[in-house]
Amino acid sequence: MSKESENKNQDFKIEKNQNEDEHGASASNEDVTFDYPPIKYEYLDNTADIQIHSWGDSIEESFEQAAMGMFAYMTDTDLIENRDMKQIDIRADGDLQNLLFKFLCEWLEVYGTEDYFIPRKIEINLFDRNELRIIARGYGELFDLSRHTQGTEVKAITYSNMQIHEEASTHDVYVIVDI
Amino acid sequence: MSKESENKNQDFKIEKNQNEDEHGASASNEDVTFDYPPIKYEYLDNTADIQIHSWGDSIEESFEQAAMGMFAYMTDTDLIENRDMKQIDIRADGDLQNLLFKFLCEWLEVYGTEDYFIPRKIEINLFDRNELRIIARGYGELFDLSRHTQGTEVKAITYSNMQIHEEASTHDVYVIVDI
Repeated sequence: MSKESENKNQDFKIEKNQNEDEHGASASNEDVTFDYPPIKYEYLDNTADIQIHSWGDSIEESFEQAAMGMFAYMTDTDLIENRDMKQIDIRADGDLQNLLFKFLCEWLEVYGTEDYFIPRKIEINLFDRNELRIIARGYGELFDLSRHTQGTEVKAITYSNMQIHEEASTHDVYVIVDI
Repeated sequence: MSKESENKNQDFKIEKNQNEDEHGASASNEDVTFDYPPIKYEYLDNTADIQIHSWGDSIEESFEQAAMGMFAYMTDTDLIENRDMKQIDIRADGDLQNLLFKFLCEWLEVYGTEDYFIPRKIEINLFDRNELRIIARGYGELFDLSRHTQGTEVKAITYSNMQIHEEASTHDVYVIVDI
């Protein structure tokens, strides 16, 4: 606290504002000497997540849409051009949830390790339910701040409340990602 | 899934990429006919929070700094001018944590009910530890998108992991707010 404000309790006249509105009347402030205080705060431990809901005419399409939705949160993918292609080939253990998890993780890894490659279109070319294997291709280009908009980066995929509604005609998928 | 892609598993030649890099070689994609897929995803249930840590030469200053830190997350307060003053007068129940909670809530309410008034400087004029009462003034102006930058709006104050270290020489305060 500044020296000036150490005596403020004495200087301050409570009576002055007793008949005013709840938050006090507006003042012109012309008489207030302004020494703006130094900054004595910081921000820590930012946590945030977003739930992506996707759907499709098949479970493959719902997976594709979930991954495209993930990238669309990171930038306006309408501005991404079809300049490059990346392919992924993944195998899961156990169930479809693990397959979806690995599918999205792998695309995040492509983004992180391939100079921020952003696919605008993702196509699953092989979806093997028995082997729990996916081969997919992403068509897009490297993120370039001079031409693309900056959304919010997806940092990680989570299993939290993950849902895959295969039986539904719209094959809805829900996945929560950390941002 | 589009009609074209229904037969893609047959058309797709896995062998083609077997000797390539992990994510497949880059391709010029000139031969790819591009019908970008429709959007079948949406974003739900966004949750996020940030922890504000503030400190000061007194507990009053730490409270002031926590509130100024809260507004500085919502906009660059260096651009806020001293055009207006709002006063708050609050009483808490029980302990200092409730006092800090109500102090920050009240400033959020001023922001929400007084046409987005943003204080750049907040001064506590009365800090009564026995009565758990604070009278404070905020000096600033109404948020104006044409002159001010848009940060992230603080939606609510929480008690989650709230800490008030009165005994420390820096009187550290930690409060997590929903954004």
